[in-house]
Amino acid sequence: MIPVRGLPEVREGDDLAELIAAAADLEDGDVVVVAHKVVSKAEGRVVRLAEVEPSAQARDLAADEDPRRLEVILRESARIVRTRPPLVIAETRHGFVCASAGVDASNAPEADTVVLLPEDPDASAARLRDRLRELTGADVAVIVSDSFGRAWRQGTTDVAIGCAGLRPLLDFHGERDAAGYELHATVIAVADELAGAAELVKGKLDGVPVAVVRGFDRRGEGTAREVVMPPERDLFR
Amino acid sequence: MIPVRGLPEVREGDDLAELIAAAADLEDGDVVVVAHKVVSKAEGRVVRLAEVEPSAQARDLAADEDPRRLEVILRESARIVRTRPPLVIAETRHGFVCASAGVDASNAPEADTVVLLPEDPDASAARLRDRLRELTGADVAVIVSDSFGRAWRQGTTDVAIGCAGLRPLLDFHGERDAAGYELHATVIAVADELAGAAELVKGKLDGVPVAVVRGFDRRGEGTAREVVMPPERDLFR
Repeated sequence: MIPVRGLPEVREGDDLAELIAAAADLEDGDVVVVAHKVVSKAEGRVVRLAEVEPSAQARDLAADEDPRRLEVILRESARIVRTRPPLVIAETRHGFVCASAGVDASNAPEADTVVLLPEDPDASAARLRDRLRELTGADVAVIVSDSFGRAWRQGTTDVAIGCAGLRPLLDFHGERDAAGYELHATVIAVADELAGAAELVKGKLDGVPVAVVRGFDRRGEGTAREVVMPPERDLFR
Repeated sequence: MIPVRGLPEVREGDDLAELIAAAADLEDGDVVVVAHKVVSKAEGRVVRLAEVEPSAQARDLAADEDPRRLEVILRESARIVRTRPPLVIAETRHGFVCASAGVDASNAPEADTVVLLPEDPDASAARLRDRLRELTGADVAVIVSDSFGRAWRQGTTDVAIGCAGLRPLLDFHGERDAAGYELHATVIAVADELAGAAELVKGKLDGVPVAVVRGFDRRGEGTAREVVMPPERDLFR
């Protein structure tokens, strides 16, 4: 687990892969975990609250917080899952269920802005991966991460909202453990575990939005969209 | 992240700390992540299905699976959260919400046995920690882990069900990020991220139930029970 230090503040239009390539010494097989916020900032997914007119619903949900922030959350939501004003748990257009539909005020470039999730985080990851290969020659995987809360447990863990260059779910169906017992219910969300592991060295306060995982035996290809539970199998919709 | 190889098959009554101390070269500050199954086996938390008489409810829930396994799950459950036979999501007496109330058939010592969660996984972690210190002199933290599914996402990630020697939730309330924005909703479940990170090197198939995380800046003390969302704050009960 290697934190990538020395990245500058990311701005709209920046070539994020170039900034990462300059700050990290990447090798074939590395998994590069990038906090979505720097991806979103480079992609211009930042909203100025001064330009937002809150709806009546946003005012209802805001409690004592800024209703304009709630308005942005509502616009980013495909479905509201739970509310306890000003807390909103929503499903995003990507299918992710998370607090505030991924809209984040912390680490926003200015105090009156909020940062949205990337439009298509899997595509963002794929672009970063291709560009890193172009710049460094290294065949890396890329995970775009965000901090999600969980039902029934306190605190957030970082998970993969974008993925390129590795299979995010490892499926052991039909394989057998050391005792010969068939592992019939074992699918491991390795991309989420990699994102969480990277969070341990990235740190919220000291501005290290990228970490490299070296030595992980990554396999196959896949997207973070595959991790979303299909509605027909979802017991918690 | 260091996998601990060469542990023997664990049996009831084994001194698990002695086995770990012999297989790993522990240092002050290490976080030792131990799959709950070896803890449970050492503590005798194994049930022979031949000795279980399934109830009518267990037969209803079993679909085409063994109703005796469902009976054990029901006995381990404080509350049933969701069912889709033979899948049962339950709250355990510890407050954990997970599939099968943590009752696991894979990696059981024999084909007709199942492994339960430890009676008190935080106490198990504390005992392991104390005994490892006694045997090696090293001041380590211990996490007892299990693989939990998540609402809305496919696949399992390993989380902490027992913890000793570190604070499982890091709270940044009131601290400020690089842009000066107050992180008012940021509590990170580091014990869960450590458990997930350890899973990446432990592996389901190759019988490596223990891993060591070295170089993590662990702080404070706390239990995994603290990670359970208090019912009054839980939007998903």
